[in-house]
Amino acid sequence: MPDSTPDAASEQARAEESVTETVVRSFDRTPDERLRVLVQALVKHLHAYAREVRLTEAEWDRAIEFLTRVGHITDDRRQEFILLSDVLGLSMLTVGMNQPLVGDATEATVFGPFFVDDAPLVELGGDIASGATGEPAWVEGTVRSTTGEPIPGARIEVWEADEDGFYDVQYGDDRIPHDGPVGDLLAATSRSPWRASHLHFMVTAPGYRRLVTHIFVEGDPQLADDSVFGVKESLIKTFTHHPAGQPAPDGSVPAGPWADVRFDIVLPPEEG
Amino acid sequence: MPDSTPDAASEQARAEESVTETVVRSFDRTPDERLRVLVQALVKHLHAYAREVRLTEAEWDRAIEFLTRVGHITDDRRQEFILLSDVLGLSMLTVGMNQPLVGDATEATVFGPFFVDDAPLVELGGDIASGATGEPAWVEGTVRSTTGEPIPGARIEVWEADEDGFYDVQYGDDRIPHDGPVGDLLAATSRSPWRASHLHFMVTAPGYRRLVTHIFVEGDPQLADDSVFGVKESLIKTFTHHPAGQPAPDGSVPAGPWADVRFDIVLPPEEG
Repeated sequence: MPDSTPDAASEQARAEESVTETVVRSFDRTPDERLRVLVQALVKHLHAYAREVRLTEAEWDRAIEFLTRVGHITDDRRQEFILLSDVLGLSMLTVGMNQPLVGDATEATVFGPFFVDDAPLVELGGDIASGATGEPAWVEGTVRSTTGEPIPGARIEVWEADEDGFYDVQYGDDRIPHDGPVGDLLAATSRSPWRASHLHFMVTAPGYRRLVTHIFVEGDPQLADDSVFGVKESLIKTFTHHPAGQPAPDGSVPAGPWADVRFDIVLPPEEG
Repeated sequence: MPDSTPDAASEQARAEESVTETVVRSFDRTPDERLRVLVQALVKHLHAYAREVRLTEAEWDRAIEFLTRVGHITDDRRQEFILLSDVLGLSMLTVGMNQPLVGDATEATVFGPFFVDDAPLVELGGDIASGATGEPAWVEGTVRSTTGEPIPGARIEVWEADEDGFYDVQYGDDRIPHDGPVGDLLAATSRSPWRASHLHFMVTAPGYRRLVTHIFVEGDPQLADDSVFGVKESLIKTFTHHPAGQPAPDGSVPAGPWADVRFDIVLPPEEG
């Protein structure tokens, strides 16, 4: 059995601290000051974690194996590391730190693993559903600055966090991809892979801070248990439901029931 | 500009803490108690890191990209996540926590990314170099317990941390693979990819703790700057050099100069 007298315990603690100090010092000559800060703090926190939980070698093996699986399932269309960051809340924390509240500006939320930047251009008032099934939603609103001026020519990119690409805000359609290691982590921790139903927006306009956000559906039971922690009170919107046959605001008559929602976007000025 | 009054600052701090608390709580129902401890502590330390360094979204992007590269270069023969753990000192810390000093037992060190468990069996006294170039080394020693009894039938696996497979302890032959993301990290932080020259051992015997260790070469200038922090004083051994023509202990006469080294291995009993 290992010697566990107080002396041996303090010698062990000193030996462990000495490993951390040596590793931190090894990064002292990093030419880029910010990189030095980032890696040295990473070493300190990573080691503090391992010491706090008394990480075993078998657990370290499993962590290596888990990260390997995350790496191998990641490709051009699926980003499992982003998903991992999302379910550990790191994505929302990073968004929250970098896009603090500015007046009445629209709040930001997670980017998610599904954005593709070659989406087709649709004119204002156009239909982005491309024939997808589900209840159509009419979305309208304005884009203005925090001082109230309308922002002309803002670019609005819209997507839905669903692998199947449905532009649909019916309850229960949204979940994160859960057939990989992140899904296994959620299952092993009794967490749900479901997301609160949402539509995903990225809004850009010269001179203004880029906004990445969602709108959520008022009344969705999943709002309190979003697997990526993306829900913010201010982003929950009222979707009004209309029966089949009632004309939409553009005069068209949807074949089935449809919904509408208003989303007024407020952008803060670009910093710096 | 963001509002940076004390009130706004404390509201921001509260909002950030609230993200962490929500994420930690989301793991409360993890059925396996140890897994719950591991993931909740991971969330706390990961978030504490991000908050301490005020991680930017661009830096988060780069971290995702870096981990993706680590995942994609990892395959059956190269384990870049282990290499990353090694250069961040996490591997040595984990070894140190799990294999504390026990009496005069041989100290352990990093496993490394190169072990393959289908190595050929060589009888005691045999040649494992398989015709590799470099100065041959005669290694001899005993395997005994911490109470002094010889351990019969111990299995000794020997390898060298070099992709090319040279069983060679000449100075300057050893470096970690540095053509991938971990090599880029070392370059960006002005750290060397060199390892102190070493021979790698894994020793197993029923009833005893598995030992993974190296022996290092006394006088190697790289001893003070080993890229994976694997050097321990007790593992530095004297390699005695002999001129060409001098017979080896088994009576054979090596064609060129050769070295010998003694390595007496002491295994502690298996725990539990």
